[in-house]
Amino acid sequence: MTPPPRATGLPMVLLSHRGPVSFERDAAGARTASRGAGGLVTALTGLVSDLPDAVWVCAAGSEEDAAVAAEHGGRAVRVSLDAEPRVLGDEDDGAAEGTPSMRLRLVEVEGHAHDDFYTVIANPLLWFLQHGMYGLALAPQLTKREHAAWDDGYVAVNRQFADAVVEEVKAAGGRALVMLHDYHFYLVGRRVREQCPDALVSFFLHIPWPGPDAWRVLPPPWREAILHGLLGNDVVAFHTEGFARNFLLSVQELLGLPVDLEAMTVRVGDRTVAARHYPISIDVAAIRELAATPEVAEHAAALTEAFGGEGRQLVLRVDRTDPSKNIVRGFEAFATLLEDHPELAGKVRFLALLQPSRQDVPEYADYLAEIGGAVARINAAHGREGWEPVDLRLGDDLALAVAAYSVCDVLMVNALADGMNLVAKESVVVNRRDGVLALSENTGAHQELGAFAVTLYPFDIQQQADALHAALTMGRDLRRARREAAARVVEENDIAKWLHAQLTDLGVTPGPASDPGPG
Amino acid sequence: MTPPPRATGLPMVLLSHRGPVSFERDAAGARTASRGAGGLVTALTGLVSDLPDAVWVCAAGSEEDAAVAAEHGGRAVRVSLDAEPRVLGDEDDGAAEGTPSMRLRLVEVEGHAHDDFYTVIANPLLWFLQHGMYGLALAPQLTKREHAAWDDGYVAVNRQFADAVVEEVKAAGGRALVMLHDYHFYLVGRRVREQCPDALVSFFLHIPWPGPDAWRVLPPPWREAILHGLLGNDVVAFHTEGFARNFLLSVQELLGLPVDLEAMTVRVGDRTVAARHYPISIDVAAIRELAATPEVAEHAAALTEAFGGEGRQLVLRVDRTDPSKNIVRGFEAFATLLEDHPELAGKVRFLALLQPSRQDVPEYADYLAEIGGAVARINAAHGREGWEPVDLRLGDDLALAVAAYSVCDVLMVNALADGMNLVAKESVVVNRRDGVLALSENTGAHQELGAFAVTLYPFDIQQQADALHAALTMGRDLRRARREAAARVVEENDIAKWLHAQLTDLGVTPGPASDPGPG
Repeated sequence: MTPPPRATGLPMVLLSHRGPVSFERDAAGARTASRGAGGLVTALTGLVSDLPDAVWVCAAGSEEDAAVAAEHGGRAVRVSLDAEPRVLGDEDDGAAEGTPSMRLRLVEVEGHAHDDFYTVIANPLLWFLQHGMYGLALAPQLTKREHAAWDDGYVAVNRQFADAVVEEVKAAGGRALVMLHDYHFYLVGRRVREQCPDALVSFFLHIPWPGPDAWRVLPPPWREAILHGLLGNDVVAFHTEGFARNFLLSVQELLGLPVDLEAMTVRVGDRTVAARHYPISIDVAAIRELAATPEVAEHAAALTEAFGGEGRQLVLRVDRTDPSKNIVRGFEAFATLLEDHPELAGKVRFLALLQPSRQDVPEYADYLAEIGGAVARINAAHGREGWEPVDLRLGDDLALAVAAYSVCDVLMVNALADGMNLVAKESVVVNRRDGVLALSENTGAHQELGAFAVTLYPFDIQQQADALHAALTMGRDLRRARREAAARVVEENDIAKWLHAQLTDLGVTPGPASDPGPG
Repeated sequence: MTPPPRATGLPMVLLSHRGPVSFERDAAGARTASRGAGGLVTALTGLVSDLPDAVWVCAAGSEEDAAVAAEHGGRAVRVSLDAEPRVLGDEDDGAAEGTPSMRLRLVEVEGHAHDDFYTVIANPLLWFLQHGMYGLALAPQLTKREHAAWDDGYVAVNRQFADAVVEEVKAAGGRALVMLHDYHFYLVGRRVREQCPDALVSFFLHIPWPGPDAWRVLPPPWREAILHGLLGNDVVAFHTEGFARNFLLSVQELLGLPVDLEAMTVRVGDRTVAARHYPISIDVAAIRELAATPEVAEHAAALTEAFGGEGRQLVLRVDRTDPSKNIVRGFEAFATLLEDHPELAGKVRFLALLQPSRQDVPEYADYLAEIGGAVARINAAHGREGWEPVDLRLGDDLALAVAAYSVCDVLMVNALADGMNLVAKESVVVNRRDGVLALSENTGAHQELGAFAVTLYPFDIQQQADALHAALTMGRDLRRARREAAARVVEENDIAKWLHAQLTDLGVTPGPASDPGPG
């Protein structure tokens, strides 16, 4: 096994599409700023704010982001990380102040190029491909439009971000630890390597990496650019070993390069690139803090009122309305459950908290309509006075979701394919009813939590119905033992550990695993 | 590398769903019989009719087949193989007669079980899965219906055929070479192995075998039954090395068995199962004989009249209307070609000879409608007085197809996925205009013929349009050199060689490779 590259003491340059802070103008015309949510942003913010010479490169996602970038000539700005983030001037150089702060470089991308990059190539083309969602008979169709979007969008935008990263690395003296994130930026690693041969470059993918067959949907110039782009990194990291192996098999089959499936490496010229896996996780303390707020308690009381009571049970799902989440088959499985077990009528309800997603993409709009249709059919077929089997709520309310996690009897996660699935991890650490996790085998989370879950096979509606029944009738002791075991796994493998493991392998010596730093 | 098992001198038992002879009743009520067409049936018929103690097991495909089977108590019957095949009585035991004959066992399957086996599971479920044609968001949906079709159809029918094979092996003394064919019979090998431990069992798959991800569409009991069923064979053979490797990777990932990707074997208990590949081919002499008939000459003259002439060129495709053949994108590519190259207007036409296929399956009926829609759109958009760009002819006329092969300038094969694709091989040995083969990288045939073809990337319409243009404007010398080289490859690797290579590996000593025997 090749010894891991060492990054001890190197300045850090981070790249992700969405950044940790976003600026707006309020009604009075004043600049406001908000912090990004989610465990990943929190963990990486903590990391970067620890390091005075670190910089986070991301897309300017709003007009005001672009204005901030323009005011500083496109260079990085220092941003305070208190409750109301603000751009710090040169006079109040943050590190000295005591307030946590970080350097942020907002990259403004021309509108058409960004559309091509984001709404033609990255979503839906790469997303669909990597989640196995093309019925290949008629879609995708790669025409002049898609070729132009590849050249003038994906390739051009990757080059622009790569150049921003390169500038930051060069400003740091040419040696830096570069951490690139996700499928938006497959091409960046190679360009950074070419311009900054002394940088240590790692890449993390947050979605599935399918086997070589799937990549043949892309013409050779695209798929080879993606693979060679990734091979510009020193480390290419995934959520699961299976994804990492699929990556090496893709390199072997589509590029003909020699891979070592034992060492999980590939030789590229005189370099060795490692495929690794680090299952991402959640900030356990933060979600438990949220679970303890009065707002969540209020939601939980209302949910218990609506769904609880003697002999009544609640099946829950919390998802974006993405076809990869397999929401329609989940409802069909619930309908099958009610057909097979008429004794459950009036006793079990299904609450679906769904966040509408990417409604500008036709496949997503169609899928939302399929969801609505399935719910209507099931409620019409099975409902009766005083009992509506499925309660579908569209929206995005984390406090409500956490309250629902805490009071549900079964959490259903039946995704077709999912890099990790953090809903599963969140629910097991805040649930208070010894709820059963019903978890698709095709989620990254199933590697860690499958042993304590009822496994779902996402294309098999009958099996999912049977599994829901098994979950609803499971004895209390077994439910408790499994939920506690699952919670322990998540507690011991939280977001801080995910980051710590990567940094340790890269030779960085971060703080203790349990403390991702302020932020 | 494990030495190959030896089958020298063993009696042979062959299994395929469709057999080499089918019986009917004519209007006068007399029994008639017809020989199956195609190189595979011809080659295997030649093999089996050489061997007096060989037997071919197949499904009774007609009422009259079932009547023949019933008259003989379900046992094998000896059938003469002259132009008018007939069942030979015990008194005229064929082998002694001089007329070639073979033993045939027609297995009658109860109608509902056969429907479940054939029209619910094998087609479309396995076919769609293995050709990557499910857009997984909504299809397939495995419900009670599919579970019943698996249990009472696929599993039951496989058991019935396995038992017929076992009877034949036992009748031959328990030692035999068993050759099983195709995706209808994944479960047979294991049952034969259990009942007949001394048999040497080989399996050949005629369609693609995708990687492990694809098989996760099936619930574990199904996919494990399929894999364990195949591991009952001594040899599992495919058209390409890629399919063989995908099979071993599937066994490794889904069953956790130790595979050796160098030796291309897997250990199953104390046995070693080999994954091999033998690219199937055509009967070159037979298709050239057909090409030399007056019927073909007449068709060729009519086609030349319709499509030929100074400065005119013909693009041809010959396919079943199966979504895997990618017919709609082929038309879209032709339309793009006409848009990009207005100078071709009036000069180039596209002749599509399409055989309607599986119109009882909704996806196939829909696909045929998409084909008709695409042709109408293109002819409306690009046609003009005296020039209709696309000529779509639905039907099944081998003589017409061979005539079209002989006079076309470009043969387009742009399949999404195709185990081999024999159209490509047929066309290069009968074409008389130094026609260019435009061939999808996702066909088995591309392994052998890709070097002499213009490669098509089946999802990329623009690339296919550009490739058609390159083919139509290629210099005559290069066209000739490539077509001749491709024809030589097919001549040297015909159906007889395909069979010979397998038998040699199995230790059977067949006749010379160039002579597949009578039939």
